[in-house]
Amino acid sequence: MVRGAGRIPAIEDARLRRVALCLLLGACARSLPASDFALAPDIRATAESLRERASSGSEATRWVRELTDRVGPRLAGSPGDAAAVAWALATLKAQGFARVRAEKVLAHVWKRGAESGEITAPYRQPLALTALGGSVATPAGGLEAEVVEVASLEALDAKGEAARGKIVFFNKKMERGGDFSGYGRAVDVRGAGPSRAAKYGAAGVLIRSIGTDHNRTPHTGALKYEEALPKIPAAALAIPDAELLERLVREGKPVRVRFILTCRSEADTESANVIGEIPGREKPEEIVLLGAHLDSWDLGTGAIDDGTGCAIVLEAARLIGHLPRRPRRTIRVVLFANEENGLAGARAYGDAHQSELARHVAAFESDSGTGRPTGLSWNAGPSAEPLVAEIAAILAPVGAGQATGGASGGADLSPLRPAGIPLFALGQDSSRYFDYHHTANDTFDKVDPPSLDANVAAVAAFAYVAAEIPHPFEKIPEAARKTPGS
Amino acid sequence: MVRGAGRIPAIEDARLRRVALCLLLGACARSLPASDFALAPDIRATAESLRERASSGSEATRWVRELTDRVGPRLAGSPGDAAAVAWALATLKAQGFARVRAEKVLAHVWKRGAESGEITAPYRQPLALTALGGSVATPAGGLEAEVVEVASLEALDAKGEAARGKIVFFNKKMERGGDFSGYGRAVDVRGAGPSRAAKYGAAGVLIRSIGTDHNRTPHTGALKYEEALPKIPAAALAIPDAELLERLVREGKPVRVRFILTCRSEADTESANVIGEIPGREKPEEIVLLGAHLDSWDLGTGAIDDGTGCAIVLEAARLIGHLPRRPRRTIRVVLFANEENGLAGARAYGDAHQSELARHVAAFESDSGTGRPTGLSWNAGPSAEPLVAEIAAILAPVGAGQATGGASGGADLSPLRPAGIPLFALGQDSSRYFDYHHTANDTFDKVDPPSLDANVAAVAAFAYVAAEIPHPFEKIPEAARKTPGS
Repeated sequence: MVRGAGRIPAIEDARLRRVALCLLLGACARSLPASDFALAPDIRATAESLRERASSGSEATRWVRELTDRVGPRLAGSPGDAAAVAWALATLKAQGFARVRAEKVLAHVWKRGAESGEITAPYRQPLALTALGGSVATPAGGLEAEVVEVASLEALDAKGEAARGKIVFFNKKMERGGDFSGYGRAVDVRGAGPSRAAKYGAAGVLIRSIGTDHNRTPHTGALKYEEALPKIPAAALAIPDAELLERLVREGKPVRVRFILTCRSEADTESANVIGEIPGREKPEEIVLLGAHLDSWDLGTGAIDDGTGCAIVLEAARLIGHLPRRPRRTIRVVLFANEENGLAGARAYGDAHQSELARHVAAFESDSGTGRPTGLSWNAGPSAEPLVAEIAAILAPVGAGQATGGASGGADLSPLRPAGIPLFALGQDSSRYFDYHHTANDTFDKVDPPSLDANVAAVAAFAYVAAEIPHPFEKIPEAARKTPGS
Repeated sequence: MVRGAGRIPAIEDARLRRVALCLLLGACARSLPASDFALAPDIRATAESLRERASSGSEATRWVRELTDRVGPRLAGSPGDAAAVAWALATLKAQGFARVRAEKVLAHVWKRGAESGEITAPYRQPLALTALGGSVATPAGGLEAEVVEVASLEALDAKGEAARGKIVFFNKKMERGGDFSGYGRAVDVRGAGPSRAAKYGAAGVLIRSIGTDHNRTPHTGALKYEEALPKIPAAALAIPDAELLERLVREGKPVRVRFILTCRSEADTESANVIGEIPGREKPEEIVLLGAHLDSWDLGTGAIDDGTGCAIVLEAARLIGHLPRRPRRTIRVVLFANEENGLAGARAYGDAHQSELARHVAAFESDSGTGRPTGLSWNAGPSAEPLVAEIAAILAPVGAGQATGGASGGADLSPLRPAGIPLFALGQDSSRYFDYHHTANDTFDKVDPPSLDANVAAVAAFAYVAAEIPHPFEKIPEAARKTPGS
């Protein structure tokens, strides 16, 4: 076994490591005799055949279309959420999955209600805005106050008491890019902004939408109130509206805004994680989990968040199920409930499957939209590295040839990390993703079928290898099992 | 005078004609001695200096910003409309225009009210839609009926009575292009569709928005009811929603939609055409009219329709007013009321100025958004052609070097055509214009300042020449004064 021999701890960059690995092995993967590899030739050949099968056209787009056309918006606990669970159960059964079931989740329930807003001074202008998920309502007649603009949480800290009684306007611009890094840098004001403003006595919060478009379609997303602080209403302005507010504030006259939200949280309601399996041929008790989330925000139809993810993992598993010989381990598709505003589905899965977490040999989540694969990110024990590099080489023709360590997995996988389960995800081209993410514009027309097929190709090839290799990936080392920031 | 000598009636294409003209003259414009031209060298030099002055950066973007930030939506008869009139009067005065006045217009008034819709069968889905301008309301509880999809007015004629009691869904796709031709081919279903459907007993009309985007921001626009037919409610679906409806209808099961509109027409209300002038130095009674429309639809802030037009003509005239020597004739800026849903401003101008229409030597309208100039279209007597070609040559550095005959002028100029007033317009790159046109997305962030300056450059140079040449353009021949289709 070559596995483990190639690790070069001093070389941090994944591409450099990969090059060094190739050099150690004597040449790059494709030109070496098979015996020098961790991956048996027949496994590689089957993975490549899955990749080619999916690349030539899969049913993934059909699944997104069915979910978005026949169900549409499916916020946790809503009638659409129940319809999505029914659709997923029926589809998994119809496609021949085994042990198809709905596992109960008590989902957080929040209802948007009506929402509107306007600038009332120095000029009167309507504003396109939407409540942040989890926000409390404004007073019945609306909340009107002067606006204080800040660029960040830190800038608010610097203003401190100047925010008292005001509406804090977090005007933090998200930069467009090919990955999620711009989102990561900007999104703190959405999650933490409302309580930070409440700390200084603010009456309400408006944020510039965390997005990269210029449409009057504001971006919702969950906020996180701190229990010890007053809960104040919070909404996101569409980006053109945020820029209008910015221009008016910078004219120097006091600017006042009035907004009305009637949103409310309600008692937890039953939803479900929907699960189906391709049973393993030799070790059915060992599991490769392919996850995505079935719920969506209410504004659009959840096509790219996360209809595409559901379609990608469903289709990848379906194609594996159609192989002449199923892989050694079980492929388990998990369509999680309530990812968007609560992660109750993820926690319920972790709780319900605690006893078998040790037998999860890999977990993968698809939750990055419709963009082409750009790489394979992973998090496992160090001995997994050469094998991951070989898998990435198989994925190279569909764009995912670069392996990058340190994957956190998707949000739904966070309860699995403490158990050390090796985590995987595909990088995807996200340059347009945040034009539509969490908006009314997240609809089926945004889906790019060829890119979706490329994702199916990569996931199917990866999952097959993970389920077929004789020895599972090394688990995440104890020291690395804590989720960053948790 | 060379004017008129170069006309080659057999050569229909404007570019070919121009080439032939150059050949007749012995060489292309720039390389000929000045005496061979209609245009005196000092006129050409001043026009070029205006072009360069505007190209280097004008105040046009400031005017759009003020109008959209401080006024915003300004549908005829609304408080925003009155605020726009006040803004225009104050701005023209502050910028030194002469005879600044508001000329009374009795504007058609229509109020949008609330609007919503949903597919009710075979699946329940909310729909993003907006009432067509002038539509009647639905019954108070909404209108629900089965949908009949047709691709055109003609396709509806072929279905005929199959539409009885149904909601007719005009699903006519507008193609993207650099000009207005795609709009022209698609828009008939908006204007004529409601009455055509009523003729066959339909209960209501939905159209695929006349636009080129994929946003959940439907495109409004005026319908035109035929007096003899029942008025039925009509709305435009956002394009993603139209495509959803198309997919569901084509699944073959009956599809039902319910929509609610509370829009209503009200009694005509006073609005105004706002006028300001740069008085002519020798023939102040002769007028070069530079027009745009001050009103806008209510969904956006009317930045590109027609804030940019207002800004372009205002700024072009302002720059002419700052010349060391004003031109021979008067430049009259007319910011028309109620273009979008009634043309009451245009008609009021024609009526109020009937006695001086003979002294209008040229009329130009800017109503094509923020795109770069692509050419100069014109409609005048044939002897104007060589002069127009010379003007176009001056505009070539800002993109408008191609002259095209047969201009209809903007909608606001239609009452001037029967008087034979020479009509002019700039072609503009419209490839993105119909992403935003008549939607909530028509906001200031869509404005491109360099393109706006290029338009100002072209309009200022054109208007100066029109106001300075010794002899006015030949009027439109009698036979060509009828507006096509009217």
